Amino acid sequence: MSEAMNIEQLLEIIDHSEAAVLHEYVTDVNAVDVARCAQQLDDRQLWKLCYLLQSEDLAKVLEQAEEEFAVRMVQSITNDELIDVFGYMQKDDIADLIGNLPIVQRKALINQMLEGDRKIICTLMDYPPDSAGGIMNTGYIALEEDDTVSRGMAKIRQIANRSEVIETIYVVNRSRQLVGTANLRVFLTADKNTKIKDVMKEKPVFVHPEDDQEYAAKLVSRYDLNSLPVVNHRGSILGIITVDDIIDVIVEEYNEDILELGGVNSEETLNSTLQESVKHRLPWLLVNLATAFLASLTVRSFESTISQVVALSATMTIVTGMGGNSANQVQSILVRQLSQDEVPGSKLLKCFRKEILVGMIDGMITGFVTAVIVSVLYQNVFLGIIILVAMTGNMMVAGTFGFLVPVILKKLGVDPAVSSSIFVTTATDVLGFFIFLSLANVFLPYLL
Amino acid sequence: MSEAMNIEQLLEIIDHSEAAVLHEYVTDVNAVDVARCAQQLDDRQLWKLCYLLQSEDLAKVLEQAEEEFAVRMVQSITNDELIDVFGYMQKDDIADLIGNLPIVQRKALINQMLEGDRKIICTLMDYPPDSAGGIMNTGYIALEEDDTVSRGMAKIRQIANRSEVIETIYVVNRSRQLVGTANLRVFLTADKNTKIKDVMKEKPVFVHPEDDQEYAAKLVSRYDLNSLPVVNHRGSILGIITVDDIIDVIVEEYNEDILELGGVNSEETLNSTLQESVKHRLPWLLVNLATAFLASLTVRSFESTISQVVALSATMTIVTGMGGNSANQVQSILVRQLSQDEVPGSKLLKCFRKEILVGMIDGMITGFVTAVIVSVLYQNVFLGIIILVAMTGNMMVAGTFGFLVPVILKKLGVDPAVSSSIFVTTATDVLGFFIFLSLANVFLPYLL
Repeated sequence: MSEAMNIEQLLEIIDHSEAAVLHEYVTDVNAVDVARCAQQLDDRQLWKLCYLLQSEDLAKVLEQAEEEFAVRMVQSITNDELIDVFGYMQKDDIADLIGNLPIVQRKALINQMLEGDRKIICTLMDYPPDSAGGIMNTGYIALEEDDTVSRGMAKIRQIANRSEVIETIYVVNRSRQLVGTANLRVFLTADKNTKIKDVMKEKPVFVHPEDDQEYAAKLVSRYDLNSLPVVNHRGSILGIITVDDIIDVIVEEYNEDILELGGVNSEETLNSTLQESVKHRLPWLLVNLATAFLASLTVRSFESTISQVVALSATMTIVTGMGGNSANQVQSILVRQLSQDEVPGSKLLKCFRKEILVGMIDGMITGFVTAVIVSVLYQNVFLGIIILVAMTGNMMVAGTFGFLVPVILKKLGVDPAVSSSIFVTTATDVLGFFIFLSLANVFLPYLL
Repeated sequence: MSEAMNIEQLLEIIDHSEAAVLHEYVTDVNAVDVARCAQQLDDRQLWKLCYLLQSEDLAKVLEQAEEEFAVRMVQSITNDELIDVFGYMQKDDIADLIGNLPIVQRKALINQMLEGDRKIICTLMDYPPDSAGGIMNTGYIALEEDDTVSRGMAKIRQIANRSEVIETIYVVNRSRQLVGTANLRVFLTADKNTKIKDVMKEKPVFVHPEDDQEYAAKLVSRYDLNSLPVVNHRGSILGIITVDDIIDVIVEEYNEDILELGGVNSEETLNSTLQESVKHRLPWLLVNLATAFLASLTVRSFESTISQVVALSATMTIVTGMGGNSANQVQSILVRQLSQDEVPGSKLLKCFRKEILVGMIDGMITGFVTAVIVSVLYQNVFLGIIILVAMTGNMMVAGTFGFLVPVILKKLGVDPAVSSSIFVTTATDVLGFFIFLSLANVFLPYLL
């Protein structure tokens, strides 16, 4: 693709006050690059950039800027100028932006808006940012089912420039309830006097404004939609969610899952300060410390056994380490599957049995390899046999807990990505040490 | 949203041969549900379902079916019927489907196609399935830049029904090179005699067919595109990638990352058989076994120390366990960040320093808590001090390796999600045991 703008180019434009060049450059696509580069500007440079940008271009850049940076940009222009810029922005983006501003400025801005805009913005701001209502926007085309295709087409021409999506037309009845969707193709090709209700598709897929954004993303992904209507409980259409917002939701949720699986707060990024990073990670480490002590106390209760056969202390970590790895595998598969679909109970039971069997087989194979090496290394076949049995047992523990913990957390309404690893690892650590060391204790005479 | 079809309803339709009901039900949206339910049918039921479905509906269901199941469906109809069904399918979907069939059937089908279709399908099949060319389709609208808006509109009406996307119109020059894009809105509202080149946006974002699908997804997500053109090195447009395919790519890559972070082959699902699961997971476990032995041998080299102070064997696991957790956190943040953007070198260096500091601070805090508990438990302050120092040191190891390993793997062109955890955990295990036990060895007299 064509080369993106870099910070040096932007600085040159600012230094030479090249407003015309800037206007030429800021198309929809390039606004992304400007927003990205401008993040690196200092306050004075940013102020000058905002001064050079026309309202329409400033709106494009604002829509593409990350939250924090958008607030910084807004701080470098006056409220009057901002109201002007809002004229070129989508209502949902305005609501998001205003929601991040200090309360005093927020109120001042809302009061300066036109009556109609104010109402829409306030409604949008009422929905939680991660709900369907929070990400919907109001630029859609709705036509009445009894209108003809030619009348519909005339209306589409009128609204087209203010609508986010034109490919999907929403069809409503006289009470403004959503009854179907029609594709713009149909309007281009159908007979002019056909009624819209005769060319529409019935039973549209929709969400309610309070539904979770993740649910909305799932519907769009499953049904390959271009946009998803948001309707209230009366069935009236309130707005639409566009597919670019859905992609943002999917990426956001993906990042959350990755971080949470690793025991990191999903708000942390590479940009977080030292204090923030320590604050975000410490709680999770302290929880882990508690479980580490549980495992440590298990080992401690076998101290007299270990003092007689020191080889146990070097070999016991293999049993728990491998159990942890195996549990991780099971857990990853379940976290992924549970985040995508409902898995029916009968299938779960079948999979559960399979996971325990996989644990047993993998445990026997890796256990056998370990047993051979340990037997040679320590010149003791019994130690080898004990580690084989313990590893097989602990991998079955891994299968059991790696499966059950995510399933149970999901049933309890807790996100399995966040907290399942802590329970699973505790199980494989504590039970791994326990199985291995108590076997060693029982067969102590053979190990001496 | 409206309730989805369930398997009982589908079975009833099949049992009563209600072809009309079925045809009524299979709209674009419901095809997804039929495909989902039909997976549970046995061969006889599936055969009857395919028999009841009209070609057009069968095409819709096939486009929504998962790979393996689509092949099963195809096996229950004849090649002639299938060629008929292909008439209603997008070319990229046909190419994907054919690519999964046995080679004999594939050749037979390609030979039965019309000359034009055959050429397109063969070209599409030549691209790797995870390249931009592999996911592109050929249903787009391209108009010449010198045409007028009204002539363009006439062409759009002609092509609309065969095009996947109509909102974005691609504009080409006389040599069929892509020179811009135009939004359908413009055609609806602009003056009829305007030339298309005067209303188009220049410098379109595009990919080459051999580009990775992940790169295509990144562009669509960054620039909020509705579709992404694929052009060859001459600049001619070959096809487009639609946003629903991009969503599939994002979800697919997301699943891969989650599984690979957990040490699972990305091909494994909950549906994999026992044999497949064992086969997929065993290699990773064996690699881990090698590293577990490395850690075990480290402990073994301190056996004489441990035999004198058995308490070490119960406490050493805390040092390595906490180091592992801390490294996991650092690694998750890096894997996520590296998969999204290029991070500039100067910023990396700054972050690296921060990560080591975070490790030190978190290590000191959790180490202090541990030291207090251990001192009381074992009535030995020196053991507490040693564990405090070791934990601080090992968490700095965690910060160092948790940061460096993903960065280096990325630089080497290896996916950090797949293999970074194995190196990082080895480092925190081996070095954690080493730091703690060698400190204990040096200060042995104080511990006795």
